[in-house]
Amino acid sequence: MQTIVFLNGPNLNLLGTREPAIYGATTLADIEASLRRRADGRAAIVFRQSNHEGDLVTWIQEAGLAGQKIVLNAAAYTHTSIALHDAIKAVGAEVIELHLSNTFAREAFRHHSYISAVAKGVIAGFGARSYELALEACLG
Amino acid sequence: MQTIVFLNGPNLNLLGTREPAIYGATTLADIEASLRRRADGRAAIVFRQSNHEGDLVTWIQEAGLAGQKIVLNAAAYTHTSIALHDAIKAVGAEVIELHLSNTFAREAFRHHSYISAVAKGVIAGFGARSYELALEACLG
Amino acid sequence: MQTIVFLNGPNLNLLGTREPAIYGATTLADIEASLRRRADGRAAIVFRQSNHEGDLVTWIQEAGLAGQKIVLNAAAYTHTSIALHDAIKAVGAEVIELHLSNTFAREAFRHHSYISAVAKGVIAGFGARSYELALEACLG
Amino acid sequence: MQTIVFLNGPNLNLLGTREPAIYGATTLADIEASLRRRADGRAAIVFRQSNHEGDLVTWIQEAGLAGQKIVLNAAAYTHTSIALHDAIKAVGAEVIELHLSNTFAREAFRHHSYISAVAKGVIAGFGARSYELALEACLG
Amino acid sequence: MQTIVFLNGPNLNLLGTREPAIYGATTLADIEASLRRRADGRAAIVFRQSNHEGDLVTWIQEAGLAGQKIVLNAAAYTHTSIALHDAIKAVGAEVIELHLSNTFAREAFRHHSYISAVAKGVIAGFGARSYELALEACLG
Amino acid sequence: MQTIVFLNGPNLNLLGTREPAIYGATTLADIEASLRRRADGRAAIVFRQSNHEGDLVTWIQEAGLAGQKIVLNAAAYTHTSIALHDAIKAVGAEVIELHLSNTFAREAFRHHSYISAVAKGVIAGFGARSYELALEACLG
Amino acid sequence: MQTIVFLNGPNLNLLGTREPAIYGATTLADIEASLRRRADGRAAIVFRQSNHEGDLVTWIQEAGLAGQKIVLNAAAYTHTSIALHDAIKAVGAEVIELHLSNTFAREAFRHHSYISAVAKGVIAGFGARSYELALEACLG
Amino acid sequence: MQTIVFLNGPNLNLLGTREPAIYGATTLADIEASLRRRADGRAAIVFRQSNHEGDLVTWIQEAGLAGQKIVLNAAAYTHTSIALHDAIKAVGAEVIELHLSNTFAREAFRHHSYISAVAKGVIAGFGARSYELALEACLG
Amino acid sequence: MQTIVFLNGPNLNLLGTREPAIYGATTLADIEASLRRRADGRAAIVFRQSNHEGDLVTWIQEAGLAGQKIVLNAAAYTHTSIALHDAIKAVGAEVIELHLSNTFAREAFRHHSYISAVAKGVIAGFGARSYELALEACLG
Amino acid sequence: MQTIVFLNGPNLNLLGTREPAIYGATTLADIEASLRRRADGRAAIVFRQSNHEGDLVTWIQEAGLAGQKIVLNAAAYTHTSIALHDAIKAVGAEVIELHLSNTFAREAFRHHSYISAVAKGVIAGFGARSYELALEACLG
Amino acid sequence: MQTIVFLNGPNLNLLGTREPAIYGATTLADIEASLRRRADGRAAIVFRQSNHEGDLVTWIQEAGLAGQKIVLNAAAYTHTSIALHDAIKAVGAEVIELHLSNTFAREAFRHHSYISAVAKGVIAGFGARSYELALEACLG
Amino acid sequence: MQTIVFLNGPNLNLLGTREPAIYGATTLADIEASLRRRADGRAAIVFRQSNHEGDLVTWIQEAGLAGQKIVLNAAAYTHTSIALHDAIKAVGAEVIELHLSNTFAREAFRHHSYISAVAKGVIAGFGARSYELALEACLG
Repeated sequence: MQTIVFLNGPNLNLLGTREPAIYGATTLADIEASLRRRADGRAAIVFRQSNHEGDLVTWIQEAGLAGQKIVLNAAAYTHTSIALHDAIKAVGAEVIELHLSNTFAREAFRHHSYISAVAKGVIAGFGARSYELALEACLG
Repeated sequence: MQTIVFLNGPNLNLLGTREPAIYGATTLADIEASLRRRADGRAAIVFRQSNHEGDLVTWIQEAGLAGQKIVLNAAAYTHTSIALHDAIKAVGAEVIELHLSNTFAREAFRHHSYISAVAKGVIAGFGARSYELALEACLG
Repeated sequence: MQTIVFLNGPNLNLLGTREPAIYGATTLADIEASLRRRADGRAAIVFRQSNHEGDLVTWIQEAGLAGQKIVLNAAAYTHTSIALHDAIKAVGAEVIELHLSNTFAREAFRHHSYISAVAKGVIAGFGARSYELALEACLG
Repeated sequence: MQTIVFLNGPNLNLLGTREPAIYGATTLADIEASLRRRADGRAAIVFRQSNHEGDLVTWIQEAGLAGQKIVLNAAAYTHTSIALHDAIKAVGAEVIELHLSNTFAREAFRHHSYISAVAKGVIAGFGARSYELALEACLG
Repeated sequence: MQTIVFLNGPNLNLLGTREPAIYGATTLADIEASLRRRADGRAAIVFRQSNHEGDLVTWIQEAGLAGQKIVLNAAAYTHTSIALHDAIKAVGAEVIELHLSNTFAREAFRHHSYISAVAKGVIAGFGARSYELALEACLG
Repeated sequence: MQTIVFLNGPNLNLLGTREPAIYGATTLADIEASLRRRADGRAAIVFRQSNHEGDLVTWIQEAGLAGQKIVLNAAAYTHTSIALHDAIKAVGAEVIELHLSNTFAREAFRHHSYISAVAKGVIAGFGARSYELALEACLG
Repeated sequence: MQTIVFLNGPNLNLLGTREPAIYGATTLADIEASLRRRADGRAAIVFRQSNHEGDLVTWIQEAGLAGQKIVLNAAAYTHTSIALHDAIKAVGAEVIELHLSNTFAREAFRHHSYISAVAKGVIAGFGARSYELALEACLG
Repeated sequence: MQTIVFLNGPNLNLLGTREPAIYGATTLADIEASLRRRADGRAAIVFRQSNHEGDLVTWIQEAGLAGQKIVLNAAAYTHTSIALHDAIKAVGAEVIELHLSNTFAREAFRHHSYISAVAKGVIAGFGARSYELALEACLG
Repeated sequence: MQTIVFLNGPNLNLLGTREPAIYGATTLADIEASLRRRADGRAAIVFRQSNHEGDLVTWIQEAGLAGQKIVLNAAAYTHTSIALHDAIKAVGAEVIELHLSNTFAREAFRHHSYISAVAKGVIAGFGARSYELALEACLG
Repeated sequence: MQTIVFLNGPNLNLLGTREPAIYGATTLADIEASLRRRADGRAAIVFRQSNHEGDLVTWIQEAGLAGQKIVLNAAAYTHTSIALHDAIKAVGAEVIELHLSNTFAREAFRHHSYISAVAKGVIAGFGARSYELALEACLG
Repeated sequence: MQTIVFLNGPNLNLLGTREPAIYGATTLADIEASLRRRADGRAAIVFRQSNHEGDLVTWIQEAGLAGQKIVLNAAAYTHTSIALHDAIKAVGAEVIELHLSNTFAREAFRHHSYISAVAKGVIAGFGARSYELALEACLG
Repeated sequence: MQTIVFLNGPNLNLLGTREPAIYGATTLADIEASLRRRADGRAAIVFRQSNHEGDLVTWIQEAGLAGQKIVLNAAAYTHTSIALHDAIKAVGAEVIELHLSNTFAREAFRHHSYISAVAKGVIAGFGARSYELALEACLG
């Protein structure tokens, strides 16, 4: 059975309290639970969050070297981290880039992503539902 | 029963013959058929293609005024058409922006979209599977 | 008696339904009627709309070759169409550029116009009244 | 009876002597006289000119605080003065931006206006006739 | 016998009437006739013009799928149309980009071409003679 | 006893009436009075305002040559005046740059300051309280 | 009694040893002591430093969720961290942005701040005294 | 006998006190005296200074309308004033642009001049001697 | 009999050995021979190559002053040499700009040409055949 | 005996597994061993790696304060970290910037380095051999 | 007796034949003769011209090492040659930058000079008279 | 025995006299002697310098065609010469790019190199020692 690793970047631990008008009231734990229910034996789910860029680099390395698929919501680091870009490229992982909000409709500094160039695909703007669509895409 | 309108822009009529290394061998007709099967009574599917920007403007207007959801693969017009942007905004339609390839990983002139700013969300990079994910997103 | 040709670009067929906070509830037909009343035998009024860039190119050619004055509300094509620019220049038509809203106070991508460089003058921001001012300017 | 204040910026005192191929031979005094005739009891006309940015700032403040409409031909200061922008915004005045020539068809440094973002509308390119159209626009 | 398709974009129907100081008095029909004479049994000539971007997209698709060589004078669409770029790339057609005037010596917005990146070569600046040189280049 | 010169630029005479949601209802006279109370014999307060760039240049020269400290709220001229920059540099005055609002959080054209490069420090965003903090910084 | 949290970013642990010509010989511990003396029962002082962006993100979250005011000297991360921007915005904290030096008078890459757009105000250029002014602003 | 008008912009009244390492100890009065001696009956010398942009605009108009040659050291306004540019162009005056320092070797914001495009020539970098060279250039 | 001067810039002496996948195996001597055969008494052919920008400047001057037509393959100097631009302009020579490869489809730094603005026309992308087309264009 | 500290940034722990076509199969441990052999009593070698920007900041501080030379392969942080720049500057360390690949020949976002401005020198493109050259450079 | 070296760059050998509307009919030999007459024993004149950047580099080195003053009309190389910049800086020569035309009023690519940053001063726009003014400036 | 060709660009003939604070007092002859000693029979050393771009192009061609390694200190031409770039690429030579100073820490116009994209590696900032490191890199 394949393993799908969901990696969540800075401030996503606040989900559900943070700007609910944009992100809704669902917490990250809610999303994790929903994904586990939905996976329903079709895949093992790993679900992690960190505010540290270096942690995300390490986790991408680990998942990639283990041949696991990655769903990456790098949040703010999406736009500033070449280190994440390099980690994905180094381990050759299949990565789906995910955003809760439609980042392309927000501030200009959120329009560029260092992840996209090394990602398989992008899903953005569907709130917590983005995670479920990404799971479907992985199970594809 | 809700209606979901899939609108396809220039050159997508060539799908299946066009750069298969990037887009695969599935034709637009295959995709339409697959969507109808998958919708399976949950939604009516409208599926159209044109090489003319003006046709897409008109179809967005019609669907939007009828209160239908739109999945828009505007292809090349994604990056050059303010008219499509205005059409979406004018009718207040809920639009999902869709791309077969991960446009963000291709030439720089494909990184900006006039659609994104007025779309609910974006799905890109999953080939024909992008359409199915968009259908799921619409069906919520 | 001179003829004045009013050409209207994409999405203007929606006028009166489209973002009334910005554009008001007056329809394009209302404007046409008002212009005919106001012209009152001083000029013949031609009034057309299309969502197709190519139609506008053709209509500019026809009016210009016939020596008619043109009032052009190219809407979204204002900002993206070199073809309209070339049509105006080719036939040497006297063109007044018109906008319902003050485009210079909106998104940055609406600040540049390919029409301005070949237009006699610009009138923007007065809603349906912009058309009447343009008529006055033509009748001069 | 409402009062309409026409404010004219640097070098407009030279009008009629300055580049007649572009601006014509009409003087600023001619324009003032023509406006008074045309207003014909429908509005009181105030007409002022200064080469000093600070004077224009002060006059905008005065007119705005008195609830008067302003027609502003800021000439060169159009493109360099944030102070004029702030004055208009501060007093919430209804301002029509006016230019004798079609500034958008001239040097690139004349394409941006700090006035436009806080103006109701723009009229440019009709020579002395621009003032009459602005008067019509004010009288509604 | 090979077929060579000459496709002409917006406003080229005006050729001969349009800015003769730049383009000369030769009409598009004159050029077509000249090409047919010059081809003289060495190739079949197809010669088309449209003001619609979508028509050009379709014609490129048709010619490309038929394995025909294309000489493309996209005029204004040269600089704004990613759709033409995609059409050429999709069908893998051999395309010669042609311009009557030396576009590189005109306004800055004519210096970039979306066609060039997918064209075999470029011929610009020789007026009607550009077409004959392109024919020679096709006949090799 | 040292003298501290507070110089206020264009439109600050409107303070208290101007965009109270951003600047509050305190007038410039209120601020002056508050500063005099707070200085309380520790420093002489000079407090001036002008809408003219040239006046500010002259006042900076005078204060600087007299060895007085300057608190400068140049308002709109902050972003456009090299003359103020040169005046400060020429007389070697110690200048604190002050803004009522957080200019760095407003329009992009307010993000650059010609004053900063020759100022000792910057205080921005505390409304009328910015003046008191600047006084404290001067009294050090 | 309110709590004011002073958060210090990378390399500030070196303060007093680092480029004294710019920053002076005062250490971070000196500053903390001075602030505690000055607060003098009017507020509780929390004072932290880290070289890790992720730590600062976490501390902003904690302080913000606890309703505490934050004085943030993010040092180098000021200019590169969208994660700090998002943390501030997410918890809706009142943040004062602080710099020891006048960053606006240094290298161009220090002129832009991701913090400013979500800060209440900015104090920069007064060395260790910047902290005291920020304390005053908080106690305001 | 011809008249040569030397116009001096903001902060030049400080000459001799201002950054002597760059500009020397010569005052503006010294320069005026030197020019009068050197002109020695070959030309009448007018010599003026103002910190106000509007004064310079007016003086250029007056000198230009009187057919006098102008030597313009616009100082900081060189780089920011389109009004000076327009004044020169409007009256068709022959203007020599003068700078004490080599502005092209200083900060980037001093590299562009709005005067140059309408000046006959430029003399920069020779300190007070620049004025004498300009006088020679006028006397031809 | 007219003379046509073919001037070849840096590294073209390597032709036939240099990146054959792009340029083919034909040498510069082969091209010269082919041109002489093809000219066949209709024009005298001069054919030169240098790696020195200064040589090309001198040869353009000589040919231009002698009233000869020039076909210029300036290679790398196309993109960096204002001196070549000035030489062409100075002698008023009729110049055809030639490139073996389609420079517009290569690196961005090859997209701009200082030659184009002063050339009659451009032929690029046909390999050695580009020279023959240029000869035809000259013989007109 | 001097100490030379080799600091390695994000993803370098993967060396030998990561894109061998670019970086080769040598691991970081291999390099460390090779350096120790080569130093051979001429210098003590410290060799560290972290995926955390903050760790690298701290290690630069420690090495710099101890007067040790630093060889820094900051990998992705080279291009994004002002914090590393500040750490080097703060402790006045002699730093050699090192890259395995020729970063200047790769993606544009790898062409700028925040390290270079405060480094003694740069060695890039020699794979594992870069480290040996850096050691030689340190040993002088 | 001091020596003043006048160095002239590419295409200046054509002076008097080249665009007389801009540069006049005076030849370079005329200018040299005029300078020798004017120097009249006050300085030895060296006068050289080359179309080769390398020659100018060498001549600047020679003159600079001999302690001679240089008047440099680098023509097109003004805008493209860092080598000239480095030569001037290396030998510490006093250089006056000279242009016949007012380069700042011509094409944008002539507005930047690599010479200015290392020149004492600039004289531009006075035609052949520019040389005489430069001679006066050297003789002081 | 392999041959290593050291090519030196403009102004390097001045080495030892040129800005010793940056480059030291070692002459180019000193460096050549040192390299010959150090090579010590392991490689033949060729060592050349020219101020002419064209000479460097020719020497790269010769060395490259002879299969020799090249160490290239192109000095100023590093930043402006596409011809050198093309020469390296054309002959497929293995080139090490060398700089005496750390060009990346100097003026912005020295940060870009046309050599880097076609070089194996870069060594910069070690003064004359840069040459020795390059020799070591060549000897592998």
